[in-house]
Amino acid sequence: MEVVKVLHMNKGDGETSYAKNSTVQSKIISTVKPAIEEAILGILCEKVPESIGIADLGCSSGPNSLLVISEIMDIIHARCRNLGRPSPEFRVSLNDLPGNDFNSVFETLPAFFKKQKQEKGIGFGRCYVSAVAGSFYDRLFPDKSLHFVHSSSSLHWLSQVPPVLESNAIPAALNKGKIYISKSSPQCVLDAYSVQFQNNFSMFLRSRAAEMVAGGRMVLSFLGRRSIDPTTEESCYHWELLAQALMSMVTEGLIEEEKLDSFNAPYYAPCPEELKMEIQKEGSFIIDLLDHFEIDWDGGVEELTSTMSLPLARGQRVAKTIRAVVESMFELHFGRGIMDPLFTRYAEIVDGYLSKNSANFINLVVSIIKKDN
Amino acid sequence: MEVVKVLHMNKGDGETSYAKNSTVQSKIISTVKPAIEEAILGILCEKVPESIGIADLGCSSGPNSLLVISEIMDIIHARCRNLGRPSPEFRVSLNDLPGNDFNSVFETLPAFFKKQKQEKGIGFGRCYVSAVAGSFYDRLFPDKSLHFVHSSSSLHWLSQVPPVLESNAIPAALNKGKIYISKSSPQCVLDAYSVQFQNNFSMFLRSRAAEMVAGGRMVLSFLGRRSIDPTTEESCYHWELLAQALMSMVTEGLIEEEKLDSFNAPYYAPCPEELKMEIQKEGSFIIDLLDHFEIDWDGGVEELTSTMSLPLARGQRVAKTIRAVVESMFELHFGRGIMDPLFTRYAEIVDGYLSKNSANFINLVVSIIKKDN
Repeated sequence: MEVVKVLHMNKGDGETSYAKNSTVQSKIISTVKPAIEEAILGILCEKVPESIGIADLGCSSGPNSLLVISEIMDIIHARCRNLGRPSPEFRVSLNDLPGNDFNSVFETLPAFFKKQKQEKGIGFGRCYVSAVAGSFYDRLFPDKSLHFVHSSSSLHWLSQVPPVLESNAIPAALNKGKIYISKSSPQCVLDAYSVQFQNNFSMFLRSRAAEMVAGGRMVLSFLGRRSIDPTTEESCYHWELLAQALMSMVTEGLIEEEKLDSFNAPYYAPCPEELKMEIQKEGSFIIDLLDHFEIDWDGGVEELTSTMSLPLARGQRVAKTIRAVVESMFELHFGRGIMDPLFTRYAEIVDGYLSKNSANFINLVVSIIKKDN
Repeated sequence: MEVVKVLHMNKGDGETSYAKNSTVQSKIISTVKPAIEEAILGILCEKVPESIGIADLGCSSGPNSLLVISEIMDIIHARCRNLGRPSPEFRVSLNDLPGNDFNSVFETLPAFFKKQKQEKGIGFGRCYVSAVAGSFYDRLFPDKSLHFVHSSSSLHWLSQVPPVLESNAIPAALNKGKIYISKSSPQCVLDAYSVQFQNNFSMFLRSRAAEMVAGGRMVLSFLGRRSIDPTTEESCYHWELLAQALMSMVTEGLIEEEKLDSFNAPYYAPCPEELKMEIQKEGSFIIDLLDHFEIDWDGGVEELTSTMSLPLARGQRVAKTIRAVVESMFELHFGRGIMDPLFTRYAEIVDGYLSKNSANFINLVVSIIKKDN
C-alpha cells in the first residue's frame, strides 16, 4: 500500500469530516506555537529577507490548514513592526498528498486574505499562497526557496507499509490480529517499521535540505513515544483498541480474518533518540530543540461543554477524531459498508478504556536549523 | 455578481463535466501552439535561465489543464537538447478561481510526472507544479518570478457584470430578454461592457507586468470578434440562442420573467483594436503578434465519428460544450431544476440554426513581450 494513493483526511465539512473533527490537531498546533515563534524570530534576527518562503507540509483541509499560516504571518508582522520596517513578501506553500481536499482549502482563501488585509492594513507585505500536491518524502520545491518549514501531525505517516509486511516475507500468522506494532509483535516486524521510518525521515531531511536557505528553520511535531521500546502503550494503544474492534467484527463474521491479517498501518511513532540519530546522520541541520508533550486523546474539550449541544461521550469524540484521519485508508481495505459499525464499536471500546485509564497522545516537537553550505 | 464566486467549469468527470466536454478548448490550444512555440524560443534565444517560471491562467480541470504545460515543457526540452545543455528547473503554476476543481487536477499529477520522466529521461530538469487560486485580474505571483505566461479561453470572462447593469441604473426594460449584447442592445449597455473589459484587461496587464521578468513573454487566446461593432453575430450569437431557449421557458411559465431580465453574462468578446489600445496604454509590453482564427462551434469533430459511439447531433455537442462552462453561473441564478430542460432546448435551437448556417467562434491570439524596465 502506497500512502500517496490512499491517505487523506476525510473531505468536506460533514459530520465525519476532518474539518469538523480536528480539535486534537488544533490543540497540538497551539502547543507548538512558542517553538514556531522562537524559530521565526531566529530567522528574522539576522536579516529580514525581502521575500520569505514558508511551507506547511501535510496541511490537510479544514480550519487547521490556514491556522498555522495565520500564526506565522502574525509573528513576522509583529516583529517587523517592532523593527519599524515593512513586512516581507510572503510566498506561502500548502502541501499535502494529491488526494487531499485542496478545493475546500481554496474556498476559504478569499476570507483569509480579507481578514489579513483588515487586521494588518497597508503596512502588510504581499502574500502569495499556492498549493503543492505530492509526498514530502520527495522533492516538492525549487532549490533554496524556503526560509521556514512547518509540519504538524503528519510525519508519523510512513510513505508505505514496510515492504516485508506486504510481500508476505513475514508470515501473516506471526502478525495475526494486529494492525500495528504491539507488545506481542515479533522482532522482525518491529525492525521493519523502524527501518521504514529511518528511510522516510532521512529522505524528508535530504529533500528539505536542498529546498531551504542556509539559516532557514524547520519546526516539526508529530506523534511519537518517550521510551526506547517501540511497543510502549503510549505510542500504539489507540491502534490496539482499533484492532480489538476489528477482531470483534471478525469473530462475528462481519470481516474476513484474512482481511484483518493483511492490513498494516503505515504509521510509526518514533522516540527522540531515533530523530536525533537521523538528523545527525543526514548532516544538514543543527538541532535547536527536541522535546515532547502530551495531548489528551480527546483533545481536552472542557470548553465545548459550555455550548448548547450535548457533550459527546469521550469515546465517541476520540473515535470521530481517529475516523476523520484513517477512514480513507480503512475504507479502501475493508469496504465502505463496515465503517459505521466499526467506529461505533471503537467508540464503545475507547469509552470503556477511558473510564478506567487516562490516555494521551505523545507528541514530539523538533526545531532544527539549516547549516551554511 | 462577482465572477470569482460563481464561475467554474463543471467539476468531476461525469457526462456534463468540463473534463468530458472541452474538445473545442483543446482545439484552440492546438491552434495556438505555433505562437506558444515562437514565444518560448524567443525567451530561450537570449539565455536559457537556470530556473524558468511558467504560469497557465484559467487552467480549469480535465485533460486540458496539463496539456499546455506538457507542450511548453516539450518545446523547452527539445530546444535545450539542440543546444546541448540540460533543461532548466521548471516552476509551473496552475491558476484558476477558487471554485475550480483543483482536486481533480492534482489527482492527475502523479501520472503526469511519471510520463514526463519516462519521455524525457535523466537529462530533464526538475519540475515543481503548484496551484494558485485567485482572480487573474489581481496579483497572483511574486515580483519578477515568471518567464512565460499562457492563458486560453479565459480572458473573455469579466471579473463581474458591469456595475450599471447590476445597480438597475439601466432600466431592465431596456435590456429585456437579453443575457448579453445583441443587435438591439441600447448604447449605454454596449458602453458599460466595453468599459468593464478595458478596466479588467488593463488590470490584468498591470499585474502580469509586475510578475514577469524583462523579456518574458505572454501568449493569450480568448473569444473575440473581428469587427469593431460589438453586436456582430460572430461574437454573441451563441448567447442569443441561449437567450431564445430561456425566453421560450419564460413563455411557458417555467422561468419568471424578472429572473431572465436580471441575468447578464459577465462576458465580453473584444476586437483586436481594443486589445491593442489597452496594451499600448498600459505600456509594459510590446506586441509581437495579434491575430485571430476561427473554430467550429462544435470543435469540428470529424475524427470522433470513427469511434464506435453514435455521433451526437451537432446542436447537442455545442450545448454540452457551453453547458460545461456556464452551468455553475446559470444554476446559481435560475436554479438547479431547470438546467436539464434548458440545455435540451438550447441543443434543439442550436441544431436548427446549424442546419441552415455555419457558425464559428472567433478566437483572438496575442503574443506580447515584457519590456526592459
